[in-house]
Amino acid sequence: MQSFEELSAAFAARFKTRHFPLYPDSLYDPAEYFLGLGGKRIRPVLCLMGNELFGPIEDDAWEMATALELFHNFTLIHDDIMDKAPLRRGQPTVHAKYGSSTAILAGDVMMVVSYEYIGKVRSPHIRKLLQLFNQTAMKVCEGQQLDMDFESRAVVSMDDYLKMIELKTSVLLAGCLRIGALLGGAGLGNQDIIYDFGRNLGLAFQVQDDYLDCYGDASKFGKQVGGDILADKKTFLLIKTLEVADAAQRREIGVLKNAPPDEKVAGMLGIFKACGVGSWALELKHQYHAAALQRLDDIAVTSKRKEPLRHVVELLLQREH
Amino acid sequence: MQSFEELSAAFAARFKTRHFPLYPDSLYDPAEYFLGLGGKRIRPVLCLMGNELFGPIEDDAWEMATALELFHNFTLIHDDIMDKAPLRRGQPTVHAKYGSSTAILAGDVMMVVSYEYIGKVRSPHIRKLLQLFNQTAMKVCEGQQLDMDFESRAVVSMDDYLKMIELKTSVLLAGCLRIGALLGGAGLGNQDIIYDFGRNLGLAFQVQDDYLDCYGDASKFGKQVGGDILADKKTFLLIKTLEVADAAQRREIGVLKNAPPDEKVAGMLGIFKACGVGSWALELKHQYHAAALQRLDDIAVTSKRKEPLRHVVELLLQREH
Repeated sequence: MQSFEELSAAFAARFKTRHFPLYPDSLYDPAEYFLGLGGKRIRPVLCLMGNELFGPIEDDAWEMATALELFHNFTLIHDDIMDKAPLRRGQPTVHAKYGSSTAILAGDVMMVVSYEYIGKVRSPHIRKLLQLFNQTAMKVCEGQQLDMDFESRAVVSMDDYLKMIELKTSVLLAGCLRIGALLGGAGLGNQDIIYDFGRNLGLAFQVQDDYLDCYGDASKFGKQVGGDILADKKTFLLIKTLEVADAAQRREIGVLKNAPPDEKVAGMLGIFKACGVGSWALELKHQYHAAALQRLDDIAVTSKRKEPLRHVVELLLQREH
Repeated sequence: MQSFEELSAAFAARFKTRHFPLYPDSLYDPAEYFLGLGGKRIRPVLCLMGNELFGPIEDDAWEMATALELFHNFTLIHDDIMDKAPLRRGQPTVHAKYGSSTAILAGDVMMVVSYEYIGKVRSPHIRKLLQLFNQTAMKVCEGQQLDMDFESRAVVSMDDYLKMIELKTSVLLAGCLRIGALLGGAGLGNQDIIYDFGRNLGLAFQVQDDYLDCYGDASKFGKQVGGDILADKKTFLLIKTLEVADAAQRREIGVLKNAPPDEKVAGMLGIFKACGVGSWALELKHQYHAAALQRLDDIAVTSKRKEPLRHVVELLLQREH
């Protein structure tokens, strides 16, 4: 059994190769550029760990892990266009550097290359793997569409927001784990449980992410405190606040919308505090965290084999400030 | 053996179903809308004909044909964004009707659904089919990128233009035929030949398309004569003209660039005529046409089985005015 750190290093070493042809460089250099920006490679490592939970890592798991990481990067390239994001990991996004048309195509071709890695799979399960990959991919696209839809909606219910987060973030983590588990020889029951483990892990992580934006230590978190507030982003905190705020607080939120940045952040944080959504969010995160650990317990393999995944949970969910 | 018309009707009847989930409708209705605009469904029918040339049509051939048609439609949705095209088949394009972000995602999800149909394939050849599909898909993306690159280049050589047309148009026709042939039981040799048949057919068709833009009967062709000239599009005719024109003609072309529409079309047609590129293009088309028929002859099945494909060639390449 290998730790997250070991598998992460092993994957990074393998992934650090050219994934695209040389010609036409006007298409493939932008794709390579984006991969070169790095990333934590969490998804492929979850695929490998899902495999190793049940058996020795198969060659096919490396192909699927690569496909999943490329798919994730394809979504980032296209999301950045839709979000008009100028930077990703501190560097220009593909559309900012090469134009939107090339960014659309570089994303497209990255998706095709992710399927090329699936085409290398030797397992007789290739059909099932392709189906799981496709189902996951569709849900991720649905999540991105809902996220865009919600931006222009005045009111988003907690249920709708949860559904969107699940589609946009959780199902890919869950899908990676399930695909790995299938390759490791897990039965359908265990596959379902590890999928649900990943789903809860993803939800806990997203609640934490929303929480840290308001309550995080900027120096540790690496982002500006209140960034979501300034961007008028719908988050767990804002949606809960809009559910519980009284009339006066709602009016204040309306006024704060157009307030100067510092005032806006301070004002909204004050309302969040008055509504108690900070501690509510921590409690919600703890619920998903506990559910994830429960699902991990439910998987029918020895506890010892689960150590690396338990460590991943702690790694991803430890931060509360 | 079924004719193009019979298979086209059979495919259209099967394809006329909902290919996407109902929710979220903000994503899937735009995708369904685009499919509803119709099209000649040439590519899936070539897949079915490639199959039937060698044996009875397999269930899998219908899945692959559907995947190929969906892939083709995905490329159209994204190309329309890049080309800023307001209309497709006389109706608003997806980005014009629903916005660019939704059009990007609707295209993305259409590509994923095309792979869902591949995931339904029962044949033990699924891995090879996936690989052929991926190789074809990558080349189509490369062709689109080169097409964009050439738009901003002052000079494009005939070789470069040919390569671009081959990638953007021909390889998908060729790939459809090859995938069908594989499913029909063709050996590698026959697969290579039918691929090359499709490649030449596609090139002949594109030369004809460029030719008809200038010399076609507007009432039959359904497009404005000289549309490519007005859009400053690089075509076989323009590229050949720039190769053979003398200094005076080149100067005139430069002046015509900013002339009023009618004058521009008439002026360019005059130069095309003086340079003899109309008859040159017809000759080039005939060469590809003849090469396609030769490749069809070379396929090791009885002549009788080839009748439907020979008919397709005539159908696609008969028009010279």
